[in-house]
Amino acid sequence: MNIPIDTPQDAAAADAVFARYREAVPVTGWNPVLARLLDHRSVRAYLPDALAPDTVETLIAAASSAPTSSNIQAWSVVAVTDPLKREALSRIAGNQAHIRQAPLILVWIADLSRAEAVATQAGTQLDGLDYTETFLLAAIDAALAAQNALIAAESLGLGTVYIGALRNDPEAVARLLNLPPRAVAVFGLVVGHPDPAVPTAVKPRLPQQAVLHRETYSQEVQPEAIARHDLATAAFRQEQNLPQQSWSDLLMGRLKTVEALKGRHLLREVFERLGIRLG
Amino acid sequence: MNIPIDTPQDAAAADAVFARYREAVPVTGWNPVLARLLDHRSVRAYLPDALAPDTVETLIAAASSAPTSSNIQAWSVVAVTDPLKREALSRIAGNQAHIRQAPLILVWIADLSRAEAVATQAGTQLDGLDYTETFLLAAIDAALAAQNALIAAESLGLGTVYIGALRNDPEAVARLLNLPPRAVAVFGLVVGHPDPAVPTAVKPRLPQQAVLHRETYSQEVQPEAIARHDLATAAFRQEQNLPQQSWSDLLMGRLKTVEALKGRHLLREVFERLGIRLG
Repeated sequence: MNIPIDTPQDAAAADAVFARYREAVPVTGWNPVLARLLDHRSVRAYLPDALAPDTVETLIAAASSAPTSSNIQAWSVVAVTDPLKREALSRIAGNQAHIRQAPLILVWIADLSRAEAVATQAGTQLDGLDYTETFLLAAIDAALAAQNALIAAESLGLGTVYIGALRNDPEAVARLLNLPPRAVAVFGLVVGHPDPAVPTAVKPRLPQQAVLHRETYSQEVQPEAIARHDLATAAFRQEQNLPQQSWSDLLMGRLKTVEALKGRHLLREVFERLGIRLG
Repeated sequence: MNIPIDTPQDAAAADAVFARYREAVPVTGWNPVLARLLDHRSVRAYLPDALAPDTVETLIAAASSAPTSSNIQAWSVVAVTDPLKREALSRIAGNQAHIRQAPLILVWIADLSRAEAVATQAGTQLDGLDYTETFLLAAIDAALAAQNALIAAESLGLGTVYIGALRNDPEAVARLLNLPPRAVAVFGLVVGHPDPAVPTAVKPRLPQQAVLHRETYSQEVQPEAIARHDLATAAFRQEQNLPQQSWSDLLMGRLKTVEALKGRHLLREVFERLGIRLG
């Protein structure tokens, strides 16, 4: 594909898109927000330095500004800075060292407890709580809010990484953070100052042909697009001195066995014990 | 709370935060990305004008740049511009007129079909697919990607609104968009040029005291914070010439009965018929 490069902005856009896909994709209206979004990389090595005053409030102001289904606002967040609590969260998440290193982990909660509390105060009850739909709505609300917080953190020059492994043991997280019934942690977000001694890189993603469909979904183009992504991933892993493995193999390894889910195959029952029923 | 206002940036930050919360919250490091995030508003009136060339590719480049759990990339998106398809999606979503008005709706897919196709091609099968965890991972991946696309669209001066009501009938969406088994629409995102004749406003959100907890979750502060939000919502609705209703009443109305879920109480069974099993 030929993309005309007429201005320095065009060149910056082409570079950012190429870093993300390892192939050319046409983009329009390049601006600082797009530049910030495309330059995302996860950070797994942090300095212990504290965050500037009011940082948490700033991240949550961004989170609160995300859309929320029917304005229900079915999310909460617990900001954990206490080293002992971060140590405990690190253990739950398979001993990820960056949870101990960085000064802050935001634990994002799909929170139906607030709705129930409002109803109890009003002397009524909500028959719509115990459904898959209602939990899904809350989890999506939490994800939209968290992603805004992540972008806000990166705009402040901070590093971040999501911690899905809190779902290895949501009951332990609930005990540690004193979560009420109907409130479950869906993931964490580590925030801190990246260790400059450990460079990060933009990770390549599936070509747009694999993820973007026009008018209807097409499976036909996927094998060729996935093969290109396997090559891009191989090149990336070589550059990063990571063991050679194709994206397809990494993907399959993550989902091949029940054991690979690291306890999360029990999530439905665990959520039920925490008051989240997927009816 | 007293927030010192020393510079025009401080004033802009204080204004943006006050518009979001209707109360002062301290923020730090104000910048154009934060300004973009805090100024979000949903747009429900659009011009029919087409989008600039390469707009969809730009939004998806932002979406691809969002984090994804273990790099599984368990999402896809169908870009729908065809007026007949938009008409059909509008009907599924309770006849929301903006789906017909705007030139584009992006339908976000929690997509486990790609993983299954990769495994089939490799002559193996994935035992980890049929779990609540795996669907939740895909839905969160889709939400993070979609939120990046939303922010990208707003950075281009476009309006957006999420359409959760596609979950009223995921089977009809799957038929319309030819989705393969194990791929379900979780929500839509309308994108278009806002109608300048219909002004939009920043909607107030729950005070930080209600959603942000420190070290452990606290239910004690919630009633007072929710009461403040009921007042802020009343003021907002009066300004917008909307019928008076408190946030608490709106919330309870949305979840009070099974009927209020508009068919979505069946989501679990519907997903199962589409190949998504919440084991």
